[in-house]
Amino acid sequence: MENYQNRSIWTTAQRTVEVVDQRYLPHQIVIVALTNTEEIYRAIREMWIRGAPLIGATAGFGYYFAVLEAQNQPDPEAYIKERYNYLNAARPTAVNLAWALERQQMADQEKDWERRLETAWQTALDIVEEDVAICHSMGRHGLELIEALAARHTDRPIQILTHCNAGRMATVAWGTATAPIYLAHEARIPVHVWVDETRPRNQGARITAWELGERGIPHTVITDNTGGLLMQEGKVDMCIVGTDRTTYKGDVANKIGTYLKALAAYHNDVPFYVALPSTSLDWTIAEGKDIPIETRSEREVTHIWGWDSDTQSVKEVRLTPANSPGLNYGFDITPAKFITALITERGVCEANEAGIRALFPEK
Amino acid sequence: MENYQNRSIWTTAQRTVEVVDQRYLPHQIVIVALTNTEEIYRAIREMWIRGAPLIGATAGFGYYFAVLEAQNQPDPEAYIKERYNYLNAARPTAVNLAWALERQQMADQEKDWERRLETAWQTALDIVEEDVAICHSMGRHGLELIEALAARHTDRPIQILTHCNAGRMATVAWGTATAPIYLAHEARIPVHVWVDETRPRNQGARITAWELGERGIPHTVITDNTGGLLMQEGKVDMCIVGTDRTTYKGDVANKIGTYLKALAAYHNDVPFYVALPSTSLDWTIAEGKDIPIETRSEREVTHIWGWDSDTQSVKEVRLTPANSPGLNYGFDITPAKFITALITERGVCEANEAGIRALFPEK
Repeated sequence: MENYQNRSIWTTAQRTVEVVDQRYLPHQIVIVALTNTEEIYRAIREMWIRGAPLIGATAGFGYYFAVLEAQNQPDPEAYIKERYNYLNAARPTAVNLAWALERQQMADQEKDWERRLETAWQTALDIVEEDVAICHSMGRHGLELIEALAARHTDRPIQILTHCNAGRMATVAWGTATAPIYLAHEARIPVHVWVDETRPRNQGARITAWELGERGIPHTVITDNTGGLLMQEGKVDMCIVGTDRTTYKGDVANKIGTYLKALAAYHNDVPFYVALPSTSLDWTIAEGKDIPIETRSEREVTHIWGWDSDTQSVKEVRLTPANSPGLNYGFDITPAKFITALITERGVCEANEAGIRALFPEK
Repeated sequence: MENYQNRSIWTTAQRTVEVVDQRYLPHQIVIVALTNTEEIYRAIREMWIRGAPLIGATAGFGYYFAVLEAQNQPDPEAYIKERYNYLNAARPTAVNLAWALERQQMADQEKDWERRLETAWQTALDIVEEDVAICHSMGRHGLELIEALAARHTDRPIQILTHCNAGRMATVAWGTATAPIYLAHEARIPVHVWVDETRPRNQGARITAWELGERGIPHTVITDNTGGLLMQEGKVDMCIVGTDRTTYKGDVANKIGTYLKALAAYHNDVPFYVALPSTSLDWTIAEGKDIPIETRSEREVTHIWGWDSDTQSVKEVRLTPANSPGLNYGFDITPAKFITALITERGVCEANEAGIRALFPEK
């Protein structure tokens, strides 16, 4: 098995980091080395990698590189601080980015440069391994929900709708929303996944579909417009999505369009679950309306990338009239009232403050 | 002004019909002549033209060509009947197709071939001109709704969201959902239109945006995922969409994804209007669930057409992994309860049987 088939991020003996440049998926497997803070920043900012947990894992290595580079700077502490803020601004919505950097900063207590570097490297590795464990644990809790449905519908696959990519390529391994699906598949529970393509960047059509296909899990790509009708027709047993940030009262920021699927689920009695690693919980924000929403380039709306079979390469084409502007919000807010439950690494809870605090009493 | 800038369908002195092949919009203006039943069928089936009213107008000429061709057939009546059924099956959801053919059949009472042909031609022209009048009348009634909003918000443009293309290229002229917008623009009421791109065929991004741009009406293209957040943020004053078929109880079949926007409007107190020419009313169906929903080629989901600036031509690229299947439903059903009102050529009414019958008591 290749590295990229197992993990979305991995390290080398030379202490560099490698990731798949996900902009080319599923058409090409492009592996890039990240060797300094600038490359870490670009990988996050330009979405070579994306997904809140993977952003956090990558940012952890960013802090390591900041410490590494600081040794050659006239004012190392000022440099680390500047790099910290720089990396922290690479994407605005995912809370994991700030979380990983803060964790590194907290751990950074040594004076000796060698030990300091060692701590930063080990902390980055810890963030990676903990993410794997968190996702697997979320998978086990979510699996119970799928098992309950499978007990009621023994004659057919369980139909699961997901939006965007909260899959293994959005994390280090397993994924958040997909972890229960992978574990159900391993447990030989028949599942079929409706994959929202997720415009504008099509992370569903490109990445979730590719991930599921690699593991032989039955799935069908649909446009973002389709889920409502499928739910009206009784063709969805459950929705599972990820989150980039969830408030302590249970409002969920996730990829733009999530809210619309939650509304449809609510009106058609389809359970709507959010797979929430505690690293994506924001204990400082109560209401979803206070979560900053990233606005991205309009070109992602007016143009699209795809595989050109003529030239056997990835090509960008324009979708709109040349003079029509586009607007590109990255996320929306799903109010807690439309969410059936949150699937965390510590178990499943209601999407409200009491439910969340019961699972995370130490916060 | 070119023909295509004024009308979406027009006739020639040789009694042929010309239309814009809308598959190439907005990138290329391709005008095609339709000269026989086969070409009419293909134009409808392969969506050179689309939009329920324009499908009806085009089908009217189809019947004329059927009569024209029948003269050379061994059994002219059997031929006309066969062509009737053939044309009627070109698309399943739009009720205007069957309506136009039935109207032609009702009018077809002459024995003399010359008079029979004349009747069919004139009936086709009548359908065309009546559609123009119907849309203009819907526009006047819808304009009153925009005027009421403009009276409350004098300091800014009225923000209108529309889905798909219920614009002039979906009708003969004016459009259904866009007629009030064109009339508001002519009346110098500032408007701004949020244009849902409307995957998979992107009629919003391609055609609505192009139409509005041609008339200088401010607009912004958004992905189908975005409208919910815009409504949460108070950036939409009203939604206006078209319909391919509406039951006499007010359930609306329209382009897939309409339902999701209606749900978001419902939960954010945004009025949601459906522009409904009476030709799209189905007096035989009460419940939306009984409207047949067209399933189209999965290639429209897995691939997309756009403008390739390298080759200066329209190019198709693949969006999904080569082995991932897609599913392509064309329409969904918006239950009447989520619709604020219907805008018809006879006025605005509630989306229920009483409201509809009050405007159309003769039915």
